[in-house]
Amino acid sequence: MRVRKRKGAEELLAENPQIVVANPEELKGKWQQRFAKKQPIHIEIGMGKGQFITGMAKAHPDINYIGIDMQVSVVSFALDKVLADTLPNVQLLHVDGSALTNYFADGEVDQIYLNFSDPWPKTRHEKRRLTSKDFLAVDEQILCNEGEIHFKTDNRGLFEYSLASFSQYGMIIKQVWLDLHASAEATNNVMTEYEEKFSAKGQPIYRVEAVFPKK
Amino acid sequence: MRVRKRKGAEELLAENPQIVVANPEELKGKWQQRFAKKQPIHIEIGMGKGQFITGMAKAHPDINYIGIDMQVSVVSFALDKVLADTLPNVQLLHVDGSALTNYFADGEVDQIYLNFSDPWPKTRHEKRRLTSKDFLAVDEQILCNEGEIHFKTDNRGLFEYSLASFSQYGMIIKQVWLDLHASAEATNNVMTEYEEKFSAKGQPIYRVEAVFPKK
Ligand SMILES: C[S@@+](CC[C@H](N)C(=O)[O-])C[C@H]1O[C@@H](n2cnc3c(N)ncnc32)[C@H](O)[C@@H]1O
Ligand SMILES: C[S@@+](CC[C@H](N)C(=O)[O-])C[C@H]1O[C@@H](n2cnc3c(N)ncnc32)[C@H](O)[C@@H]1O
Repeated sequence: MRVRKRKGAEELLAENPQIVVANPEELKGKWQQRFAKKQPIHIEIGMGKGQFITGMAKAHPDINYIGIDMQVSVVSFALDKVLADTLPNVQLLHVDGSALTNYFADGEVDQIYLNFSDPWPKTRHEKRRLTSKDFLAVDEQILCNEGEIHFKTDNRGLFEYSLASFSQYGMIIKQVWLDLHASAEATNNVMTEYEEKFSAKGQPIYRVEAVFPKK
Repeated sequence: MRVRKRKGAEELLAENPQIVVANPEELKGKWQQRFAKKQPIHIEIGMGKGQFITGMAKAHPDINYIGIDMQVSVVSFALDKVLADTLPNVQLLHVDGSALTNYFADGEVDQIYLNFSDPWPKTRHEKRRLTSKDFLAVDEQILCNEGEIHFKTDNRGLFEYSLASFSQYGMIIKQVWLDLHASAEATNNVMTEYEEKFSAKGQPIYRVEAVFPKK
């Protein structure tokens, strides 16, 4: 996803260091300091404009959320939402998901969300997919023991790839939904921006919960 | 699936012992004797009326196929097809899939097909599903090292269940198709009776190849 550059996005981030972390390397191992309460940390990699992460933060005040995206403009839109609601349990991080071991200590994260990740359908771009082996190795390192990835998408090819990729990495498939909105799980579901767009077109939404093996 | 009783089905089976094995316990470990050539053995559990197993046998003369079903009437319909084509690489077996260790030696089978297995949607019937744990334990025992199950179905609930069941058993998901007929694999696909019926209604056909761990 490429979003139009938003004028002044960088400045907006810089003006809100209480929400958008300015020095993430220094927080490695100390993320709980950034939140009002010490409670499990869930992160979303590739959060886009932040509807999911802020929606989850409202629905689950007992979890600390960190929304991550590498595009400055989308982080700035997510920031608008966090500011509008003054949520004590959301932090934003403007970094690349491939580098998360620089910003999180081993085992510091309790759960990872991936939502409507860029599909990169060409085989030669496989390494850019957030569910490919090298990203999973990063995820495993920063996650707690038997940590989970919860992934949803409308993209059939990416979902087919990801199920095999998780399994071949050694993860266990806990549960799968092949039409999330038609399932009982729909009542707990917080929609993302992309999810609203694609499900309005009648496409089924796929979802999986996968667990890393014991450390 | 319950098929109307076919009159004379039992007799038809008994009259064709060269195709429908009469004494399967005695063949345990000796299945290659039943075929013209010694070559890999692929079995289908719950073959129904045999369109898939006979179609595969025609397309792959280098494989020995055994079609298995526990309903006498459907086995008799499959027998009609084998007789019509005089295929040297198909045998039929009228037994319950839960008892296959009585009829096959450990490692005697090279691959297992499951097609449009009865979904048994109620949780209390989970044990009847051909992709549940106890059936997988039987399959693993009769399969060669790193043997595979190739499973297809139109049933969303059963497919969701089966992906998780395979993974939780310790199998690796090699590849998944969420719309088989729209994929490149469609050209190699031999359709079953149920597949023709359900895909004509526009339902996507799901498919998975899963591998047992090294013995
Ligand atoms: C298709 S959008 C989906 C946004 C949102 N999750 C949703 O469902 O509406 C994918 C997002 O992932 C971000 N992204 C892609 N690769 C990334 C990476 N390696 N690290 C961080 N963010 C990434 C993109 O910048 C984009 O905002
Ligand atoms: C829904 S039909 C599908 C038939 C065929 N595979 C197709 O795709 O057209 C399921 C078949 O599995 C058989 N079956 C169910 N449980 C079985 C078991 N435990 N052992 C052997 N066959 C079984 C049924 O008798 C039935 O013929």
